[in-house]
Amino acid sequence: MEDAVRVRAGPLKDFCVRVFTKMGVPEEDARITADVLVTADLRGIDSHGVARLRRYVNGLRSGMMVARPEVKVVAETPATALIDAGAGLGQPVSYRAMKRAIEKALDVGAGFVTVRNSNHYGIAGYYAMMALEHDCIGISMTNAAVLVVPTFGRDAMLGTNPIAVAAPAGEERPFVLDMATSTVPRGKLEVYHRLEKPIPLGWATDETGQPTTDPGRVLENFKKRAGGGLLPLGGAGELLGGHKGYGLALWVDIFCAVLSGAAYADLVYPKTPDGKPLPSKIGHFFGAWRVDAFRPLEEFKAAMDDLQRRLKNAPKAEGQTRIYIHGEKEFEEAERRSREGIPLNPKVAADLRAIAEELGVEYDLE
Amino acid sequence: MEDAVRVRAGPLKDFCVRVFTKMGVPEEDARITADVLVTADLRGIDSHGVARLRRYVNGLRSGMMVARPEVKVVAETPATALIDAGAGLGQPVSYRAMKRAIEKALDVGAGFVTVRNSNHYGIAGYYAMMALEHDCIGISMTNAAVLVVPTFGRDAMLGTNPIAVAAPAGEERPFVLDMATSTVPRGKLEVYHRLEKPIPLGWATDETGQPTTDPGRVLENFKKRAGGGLLPLGGAGELLGGHKGYGLALWVDIFCAVLSGAAYADLVYPKTPDGKPLPSKIGHFFGAWRVDAFRPLEEFKAAMDDLQRRLKNAPKAEGQTRIYIHGEKEFEEAERRSREGIPLNPKVAADLRAIAEELGVEYDLE
Repeated sequence: MEDAVRVRAGPLKDFCVRVFTKMGVPEEDARITADVLVTADLRGIDSHGVARLRRYVNGLRSGMMVARPEVKVVAETPATALIDAGAGLGQPVSYRAMKRAIEKALDVGAGFVTVRNSNHYGIAGYYAMMALEHDCIGISMTNAAVLVVPTFGRDAMLGTNPIAVAAPAGEERPFVLDMATSTVPRGKLEVYHRLEKPIPLGWATDETGQPTTDPGRVLENFKKRAGGGLLPLGGAGELLGGHKGYGLALWVDIFCAVLSGAAYADLVYPKTPDGKPLPSKIGHFFGAWRVDAFRPLEEFKAAMDDLQRRLKNAPKAEGQTRIYIHGEKEFEEAERRSREGIPLNPKVAADLRAIAEELGVEYDLE
Repeated sequence: MEDAVRVRAGPLKDFCVRVFTKMGVPEEDARITADVLVTADLRGIDSHGVARLRRYVNGLRSGMMVARPEVKVVAETPATALIDAGAGLGQPVSYRAMKRAIEKALDVGAGFVTVRNSNHYGIAGYYAMMALEHDCIGISMTNAAVLVVPTFGRDAMLGTNPIAVAAPAGEERPFVLDMATSTVPRGKLEVYHRLEKPIPLGWATDETGQPTTDPGRVLENFKKRAGGGLLPLGGAGELLGGHKGYGLALWVDIFCAVLSGAAYADLVYPKTPDGKPLPSKIGHFFGAWRVDAFRPLEEFKAAMDDLQRRLKNAPKAEGQTRIYIHGEKEFEEAERRSREGIPLNPKVAADLRAIAEELGVEYDLE
């Protein structure tokens, strides 16, 4: 990271907004999408931040993502709704779906919205965290293109299908669990591959379905769709609970896709016969529970603080100095990066400059 | 299992009902509790079936569990409720809480009920599966006495905190995920200890917080509360995702206990100064989503069938012959045991005979 340019969140967001609006995305949708991306960068989840801007630009160009989609509420009850995203960007429809879930929670105690016909929505935690300012607990899940092998299977049949849950606290920070249901994301293999390091057994399998320590082989197999892939949380087989991670991934597929009418199981980004990308038909699931529908808010927050303190103050394993609460590392990183700027990897910075040039939008980040 | 007596589910349930009613439990509550226990035995989850009858009898005797509790609805909205179980058996209040969640789902699309001041509720999957006959998706979670060590911690601070999710299908069986958020339950260590086999690294830690292969040491440490315990799904540290299993356990604690006002974090079965057990103050969380609030039921069921078939028919890893859907093994076991009877371990059978004798109820199982 020594060569990384440091940029402020504000100008980085503004740059993304210029890019998206230039691509025909309405101003408000562009602002939402930019905020989701830069929030990932602030929280240290670089893989889901502006490093992905190129993919969205390509998606909008190719027609895989629609800049001005026709978004429809397909079904609705007091506590639920189903939205068709019209193949638009994942972020604006997800932001609005989560808002609707929160409104329902404020109204009847709990609210849930599924979304179909969508695209990559960024970090799952963003939407779950939207519940916090309304004193609700939030949940967000999405399915994704296949990378993960089911227990005893040979081929990738499921996405890394993340689950995020956010719960407010009082003086302590909110609890923000934001986890892929695979042991690691694909990006982790890319890092080890670049460093020419073997990966631990339990991360991925080769094309025969056996655990492997060779990240290059797994990445090569992905490209060729030759079999193998990432392992679910718990690793290969059932000995260390791999069937549980597989079950969590399947749960996400059911809630995001079977319940909404999105693509599932062996979701791949489809193409026309002549290679033109088609909408990815990804599905999402959002929900909110109003805390004080169950229990007075101040009691809940005091108990959340106490829970966190008990864990943080508990004795540590030999050689360890700290027990973390989920989200804590990311909140600390966001504070650091708000102060010091977001480090832009030189390759990412070059990519942003290239996008600016291609589209003829101003690049003012360096 | 060669010496196991085989008994029919019906007479086994009737026996449990006699035991519970003799202990002062109302007939209907006794029937519900018996059904939850014997359903576990039918499904092959022997650790949560009648093998636990002794613990419930002891709990009712000691006053830890109240036979005729005062159950109160503390708070309610169209989609939510909070119930105080009055320190009664976990099963009857959980059955009624889940029924209420389903009624709310049928009414407004989704429903959620938390329960506080309860006791061990048996298998999490039982309640999630109650949603199936109403064409709802069900969820059930419970916290439990501490056995699980948080990532980087030395001492057990969380229960095995299971999550169960059940979703209906058409011609295929329902999806029933029912998983502890630890890598394995404590019972698994007891089995390895009896067989004098080392446990795999990733199951448990010793009293210093280091992973261990010695199940006897872990079990001994539990007794002495000397530190160490079961590892969360993903194992020790963060390399294989142990922080994710820890996060799932924490999620369950928040939903079951922080949201309801039950005990959390280092939940231990409390006692009076002179050693008399006090109510365990366990908490549960139940929920249901009505499928057709989102999507026509027949479409959902057809997609559930298709999802399952795609997974089951997918290529297998070398040396494997079958990819399972969650719940499938248990449904097959329940069919087998309905036909052939439930195998009662001789020690369990002896225990049931002893209970019958102590209470003066008829024992007609052998």
